[in-house]
Amino acid sequence: MTVAVLGRAEIEAAARPGLVLDAVRAALIAHAAGRTTVPAPTHLNFPAAQGDCHVKTGWIDGCDDFPVKIASGFYRNPRRGEPVNHGLVCVISAHTGRIRAVLDDGGCLTAWRTAAAGALAGHAPARPGARSVGVFGTGEQAPLQVRWLAMLGPVGRVLVHGREERRAAAFCDHLAGHGLSAVPAPAAEAAGADIVVTAVGADMPHKNELPPALFARAGVIATVDHEQCLHHGDLAHAVRAGAVPPDADVPFGTLLLTPPDRTDTAVTIADLTGVGALDAAVASAVVRELPR
Amino acid sequence: MTVAVLGRAEIEAAARPGLVLDAVRAALIAHAAGRTTVPAPTHLNFPAAQGDCHVKTGWIDGCDDFPVKIASGFYRNPRRGEPVNHGLVCVISAHTGRIRAVLDDGGCLTAWRTAAAGALAGHAPARPGARSVGVFGTGEQAPLQVRWLAMLGPVGRVLVHGREERRAAAFCDHLAGHGLSAVPAPAAEAAGADIVVTAVGADMPHKNELPPALFARAGVIATVDHEQCLHHGDLAHAVRAGAVPPDADVPFGTLLLTPPDRTDTAVTIADLTGVGALDAAVASAVVRELPR
Repeated sequence: MTVAVLGRAEIEAAARPGLVLDAVRAALIAHAAGRTTVPAPTHLNFPAAQGDCHVKTGWIDGCDDFPVKIASGFYRNPRRGEPVNHGLVCVISAHTGRIRAVLDDGGCLTAWRTAAAGALAGHAPARPGARSVGVFGTGEQAPLQVRWLAMLGPVGRVLVHGREERRAAAFCDHLAGHGLSAVPAPAAEAAGADIVVTAVGADMPHKNELPPALFARAGVIATVDHEQCLHHGDLAHAVRAGAVPPDADVPFGTLLLTPPDRTDTAVTIADLTGVGALDAAVASAVVRELPR
Repeated sequence: MTVAVLGRAEIEAAARPGLVLDAVRAALIAHAAGRTTVPAPTHLNFPAAQGDCHVKTGWIDGCDDFPVKIASGFYRNPRRGEPVNHGLVCVISAHTGRIRAVLDDGGCLTAWRTAAAGALAGHAPARPGARSVGVFGTGEQAPLQVRWLAMLGPVGRVLVHGREERRAAAFCDHLAGHGLSAVPAPAAEAAGADIVVTAVGADMPHKNELPPALFARAGVIATVDHEQCLHHGDLAHAVRAGAVPPDADVPFGTLLLTPPDRTDTAVTIADLTGVGALDAAVASAVVRELPR
């Protein structure tokens, strides 16, 4: 008898948004409290093929299982009609080491935990009555970020800023199909919204999304993982630019437990980089939904 | 369509010993020549369950694919009637990142690449006419080491030294079933054989198998990976004991290409620790055997 493999349809049926949001929220709180174990990933680069493969694992202390997530990105694939990203998640018993399931998810679990973390970051620290949403970027995560945010509370006008007009318009049409009102907008207008989403790509030290000066005037800076965001989050750029000291942040999980005082009008920044604890929580939650 | 999973029967049919020996020999030579990429593994420990999980990857430069190997050891499993080790190997295209197959091998590929490396180490540097084999240990690797050595050349009397008489006798019976003549023997007698196998466990800095003094009188010391053997091979113990300098070794792969002069009677030591390049070579070879 070989290991059980779940395909995308089964995973989609199990990974309802409420389940994913609850799992990600709990994982962020556990990670903030130091109740997770997240070793450094291992990875290989394939310069000639413009590809890389990252393998991550992580454990929420005491959880019945843990994942090993394999995720590759080969940037020439579209030329041969193949998606850039491939991968799977193995879910393993933390009691026996037995492999409980292989989740052949086509990357959707990573996309959803990213969307869930972004939605929680947009919702939790927002003022009551915050409605308008500015979105920078029109890639794969952009519509997910807005749609998952709309699951947590009412979303008003969505202001979309993209480099390509055509893509921004298509994105607005997509949101309209989900009952959301969206219009293309210049950067200054999108940046003035109640909730601003940058969608979403700071996963390496040389990438950044937010102007360092924004950090200097933020009321609260929340990071998903202090060390990691100091290494390759937007916080790293702000610290290098001298805008804020390296200890200017609080754990994002703490913010979920105790939201900041929202009678003021200060900006809250959430700096999110991928952490294995979120992958662990979502994979475990999906496997728990399956018949044993 | 989900990813293809191969079970143990299919893997055994594909992974003929000749295939595995050729793959391991080629990988050792490539590794010695610097034509491999082997990043540091990632791992998790589960102290309460006396378990751990190691995830390794590696690439033989230019090869069409690479593996990610997940291997766990949970040392309380036998109490619940379950094997200590679990794991699998994902074989991934080095051109597109697509997962070509999941090898649900029950650990057999690791056992066989270890046996193959041991057999090559016993055979390649031996004098012409070397026949007697001394074996220290009666665990899972012991019979594999001797049987794979016998695939490379004639094996004479096998002298088995184990801590438990009953296990040593059972091991001798097992070898007799494979047409090999074996007897239990005291340590001094087993150590006097033409070819000596310690079977096989130095995978952590605190473990060792060979007396450091043996290194001082060896004619050749060959290591599968210089840095790794200086960290947790028997070489590390010999260097710490002052028996040899840290640069006393040559790459084992070089020894396979150019065997030492065997008209002398000096001892050759091969210090083998697991390297991802061997896993990569064996997994790739197995997948190449499968219908596309």
